[in-house]
Amino acid sequence: MVKKPIQINDGNRSDCLLLNAIDSPADLRKLPVEALPCVCSDIRAFLIDALSRNPGHFASSLGSVELTVALHYVFNTPYDRIVWDVGHQAYGHKLLTGRRDRFETNRKLGGLSGFPNPAESEYDTFTAGHASNSISAALGMAVATEMNREQPRRNVVAVIGDASIGGGLAFEGINNAANTPNNLLIILNDNDMSIDPNVGSLHRYLAHITTSKGYNDLRFSIYRALKKLHLVSDRRKGAILRLNNSLKSFLSREQNIFEGLNIRYFGPVDGHDVGTLVKVLNDIKDMKGPRILHIKTRKGKGFEAAEKDPATWHAPGKFDPETGNRFSSETETGAAPLKFQDIFGRTLVELAQADTKVLGITAAMLSGTSMCLLKEAFPSRVFDVGISEEHAVTFAGGLAKEGLKPFVAIYSSFLQRGYDQIIHDVAIQGLPVTFCIDRAGLVGEDGVTHHGAFDIAYLRTVPGMIIAAPRNERTLRNLMYTAAIRESAPMAIRYPRGCGENPDWRTTLHAMEIGKGEKLRSGSDIAFISTGTMASEVRSAIERLDAEGISAAHYDMTFIKPLDESMLSEIAAAGVPVVTVEDGTICGGLGTAVTDWMAMNGHKEVEIRKIGIPDKFVEHGTVPQLRKLCGMDAESIALVAKGMLKSHPNCL
Amino acid sequence: MVKKPIQINDGNRSDCLLLNAIDSPADLRKLPVEALPCVCSDIRAFLIDALSRNPGHFASSLGSVELTVALHYVFNTPYDRIVWDVGHQAYGHKLLTGRRDRFETNRKLGGLSGFPNPAESEYDTFTAGHASNSISAALGMAVATEMNREQPRRNVVAVIGDASIGGGLAFEGINNAANTPNNLLIILNDNDMSIDPNVGSLHRYLAHITTSKGYNDLRFSIYRALKKLHLVSDRRKGAILRLNNSLKSFLSREQNIFEGLNIRYFGPVDGHDVGTLVKVLNDIKDMKGPRILHIKTRKGKGFEAAEKDPATWHAPGKFDPETGNRFSSETETGAAPLKFQDIFGRTLVELAQADTKVLGITAAMLSGTSMCLLKEAFPSRVFDVGISEEHAVTFAGGLAKEGLKPFVAIYSSFLQRGYDQIIHDVAIQGLPVTFCIDRAGLVGEDGVTHHGAFDIAYLRTVPGMIIAAPRNERTLRNLMYTAAIRESAPMAIRYPRGCGENPDWRTTLHAMEIGKGEKLRSGSDIAFISTGTMASEVRSAIERLDAEGISAAHYDMTFIKPLDESMLSEIAAAGVPVVTVEDGTICGGLGTAVTDWMAMNGHKEVEIRKIGIPDKFVEHGTVPQLRKLCGMDAESIALVAKGMLKSHPNCL
Repeated sequence: MVKKPIQINDGNRSDCLLLNAIDSPADLRKLPVEALPCVCSDIRAFLIDALSRNPGHFASSLGSVELTVALHYVFNTPYDRIVWDVGHQAYGHKLLTGRRDRFETNRKLGGLSGFPNPAESEYDTFTAGHASNSISAALGMAVATEMNREQPRRNVVAVIGDASIGGGLAFEGINNAANTPNNLLIILNDNDMSIDPNVGSLHRYLAHITTSKGYNDLRFSIYRALKKLHLVSDRRKGAILRLNNSLKSFLSREQNIFEGLNIRYFGPVDGHDVGTLVKVLNDIKDMKGPRILHIKTRKGKGFEAAEKDPATWHAPGKFDPETGNRFSSETETGAAPLKFQDIFGRTLVELAQADTKVLGITAAMLSGTSMCLLKEAFPSRVFDVGISEEHAVTFAGGLAKEGLKPFVAIYSSFLQRGYDQIIHDVAIQGLPVTFCIDRAGLVGEDGVTHHGAFDIAYLRTVPGMIIAAPRNERTLRNLMYTAAIRESAPMAIRYPRGCGENPDWRTTLHAMEIGKGEKLRSGSDIAFISTGTMASEVRSAIERLDAEGISAAHYDMTFIKPLDESMLSEIAAAGVPVVTVEDGTICGGLGTAVTDWMAMNGHKEVEIRKIGIPDKFVEHGTVPQLRKLCGMDAESIALVAKGMLKSHPNCL
Repeated sequence: MVKKPIQINDGNRSDCLLLNAIDSPADLRKLPVEALPCVCSDIRAFLIDALSRNPGHFASSLGSVELTVALHYVFNTPYDRIVWDVGHQAYGHKLLTGRRDRFETNRKLGGLSGFPNPAESEYDTFTAGHASNSISAALGMAVATEMNREQPRRNVVAVIGDASIGGGLAFEGINNAANTPNNLLIILNDNDMSIDPNVGSLHRYLAHITTSKGYNDLRFSIYRALKKLHLVSDRRKGAILRLNNSLKSFLSREQNIFEGLNIRYFGPVDGHDVGTLVKVLNDIKDMKGPRILHIKTRKGKGFEAAEKDPATWHAPGKFDPETGNRFSSETETGAAPLKFQDIFGRTLVELAQADTKVLGITAAMLSGTSMCLLKEAFPSRVFDVGISEEHAVTFAGGLAKEGLKPFVAIYSSFLQRGYDQIIHDVAIQGLPVTFCIDRAGLVGEDGVTHHGAFDIAYLRTVPGMIIAAPRNERTLRNLMYTAAIRESAPMAIRYPRGCGENPDWRTTLHAMEIGKGEKLRSGSDIAFISTGTMASEVRSAIERLDAEGISAAHYDMTFIKPLDESMLSEIAAAGVPVVTVEDGTICGGLGTAVTDWMAMNGHKEVEIRKIGIPDKFVEHGTVPQLRKLCGMDAESIALVAKGMLKSHPNCL
């Protein structure tokens, strides 16, 4: 419920009266088309109000309001399918599809997901979160519609942004779309941005198309006129096809990239004119064959501060809906610890200052990884390749092959995209590419698609890969330094979303011995082996055990590959129960590496328990909530230890 | 050494006199350009002769002979870099770069690799084997050249086929190429084929360009004329740039896709006219900025049988160089067992006959996976998406979401490309997509890039994934049937390259219980747990042990996930040593799953050894040779067992 009318940047004030009466798209479709602008204002007001209090993705959803309304107005959802790419623009969609009353729970444990989620609503047709998948998924649905001979005809619509469409997966989908009977409609929601300003030559091309608008308008007007006279329908029908093609030749010899790929192209259309969108969608919805409608929108539309600085307002945190002032809890104040990503960014600048061979690569995560700091310091030594994780890895391989030292910063869950390239284009040649894996482990509110659960497990299978996890700011810096001075072998350094613990992060850089862990604490009853920042949870658990007179040892397995075998031998020799603790899946991670090593090295007697992300998909919530849910918090860790000691003959 | 002159399809006869004098590209560059056609004939004769006796990739290398000669003639290799995509067309390149005398060892253990291999020669600049990586890798090298300020200017050339350029990774590379200073030259070697006929709308587009050759020829002629007059150079230079652009506008408003993406386009050029290729390469080699040269070639060029049937002659096995008759050991004769891929293909047809929801997807592996059998039976129910593994997986997710039952057949090492899509677009939603993973385990002569070493390990990390490996034809069929009748959860069925053991493969289909293994044999001294066709090696090992009076039990872990826990409990209870045997990496595979399970379930006393592909990259050779090398053959397995028993108190 919006508490008071909100001022929208188009001059409207909204009290959400229309929106409050829409409990499903069927209600929306009862309204006259003239009412739709008011619905749009209502959605904006609702989102501004709700997100000012309960933070989430902001600017993308504001930019897609008219599109969302037009789609649900024209198409018969949920029978017709809308597939949102990435999905952080789908909040308006959630409001129109029966989830308005629950929107206060957005991104909260047990509440709505911040992305479309098929488990949540039949209107959410496919998993969203990783960019560029919508065309392929929607093409599957559109082909299924043909194969299942659905009656009435089912429309399938993919909504993809101008950044996502630059991903290789999206290109593969487009390349395949014209190959098989389907009526897929692709909507290219072009706001000139990814999270940061967009890059790539396709993006440049889209800007060029926009300047050719006159030509497209003319062509489209003529097409519509001829369609009314039934002189054109679709290109698959003999004589009419020829007329249409020769008409096109007559109008211009210029060929659009999409039409070159045999996808009929329409646009660009003003994506904030809901009346026009409804008209255009009605015009093209019954056409046959794959089509693309290019609409131009503005990220943050309707909220002045967001329009001016859409990158910051991608996910702004809490703010004042009247003034647009952000209540940032994350700005760097006095003695607060920095985020790990900032430690990474600042350290990378230091390394680059010391060695001209050091450079940075990211895939549309320039600010999210703080690679932007290196970009400010050495603009020519940073390569933001756009949403192209695969290319980022292989490109880094090429650079490393010529003696450079690329640091590739990609979020854990997105690096899954580059798995083959890590093996084939880096590891086989033993190239010294450094993967700085941000958002490793549970990430919190972004939920199931974004948790960095698998990186330890999937990287551990790669021969020759060095995998390390810093337990604090100092070790992150030292690991990066170690990576920068090595000559061969790929190395991964994983660290979590969020802040560290030490305001005094600017320590002197030291090289670390690869494959060497650290004993943090001695103890005689039980031994903990943790990796990365889970050391903190273990420390808290040990405090609890201390209070009960239990003496626990604590080992930091800084390198998950190669393992510190002498440390493991020492632990095995102690003859006490062992608990492994990691912020990653227990199926193939550190714990598995330890049980495997113990079994292979004749230490059968060692009793081991593994703590980590369980072998299932974990939903959204705060990191502390999720850690508790997964039994990874200090209390759960202490309980596991006590449970082991109860049944252990040597202790207590 | 060619034994006698070979008749080439261009009417020449060759005795390889020129080729025999070329020990490095420097020797080639001493020849007058007029001699190059003879060098080409020599290379063809050499390859036809050598490959008729020692099988390998054939038709691709024949099609790229003139290109290979022209590249090494014009460019200063190895200082200049040539990056071959996939690399099975690079045999001519190997002959010219000092490896002629060792070519008899091609694809043999300890001999030359069948693909470019940086460990083998400085002329092999980057790992090749998985398609579509050349543009990204070469872009990295080209950018490194700029950053390292190499003097003299270093040229970097990527050679990519018309099938490979349709892969998402290649598109990402192109999309990024115009974004940063580099002089990358991309050569699009367009032979209208992948292994099978090529697909996709980009491919259709390339055919369209070819028909516009007049326009391109005209444009290129004018460009060259103006260049001689020093009226044009490159687009980065003010006034000259404007002249060039307006010239282009004058010549035509048609815009090429590549030029739309800001890559300067030249072609198409006859790729079998070595003189023209040399001229064109000389013309464009010193231009600045990224460029693409489109050449048309014919797969199998110069050998009539291969020109007529390039798919069969992609890798034809041994043949008669005079008659073109293939000495196929692989045709289906009388009572010989079929290849596993054919069991897959035939069973898929049966399943499709019984259930209209069953359909097939592959990614340019139509004949390699025998998906072509379903294509013959039900053409509209097979989707060959081209070299697009990522799209194949997500597309299958979309189909499954709408109730269909897609079987995705992709080789193990190529499915690495779809790892993120398996997690994000299939597993999170628990969609019943079936992955039929061909070429799982050691593949033999294709070597390091093609071994299916990692699939068990990387799939085991995915929550909810069912992973199975049939030990013979019958279980493959039953697993496929089981997959076809299930309603949810992704399922992977992995099987090796090559033939099974039973000529009577056409068994009645039975459903198998998911997660249920099978006890194949009782025994009291030691227990083997194998998965997949490694059961045969274990059977042989057991025969050896039998002969020495050792009694071995044998369990088939048909499902690697979920594990058969009651079977594992039974094994643990027996108190004998356990040996796990798998055709996959020991780092995260079946063996790891077993050690992990034993440790987590309180069976500390069980002594375990793991046999499988070691945690390193394995080279090429025959499968039996490589199994021996990796300690995976029957003899090695028996030795491990005996070694364990020696130190085991309960036995012997």
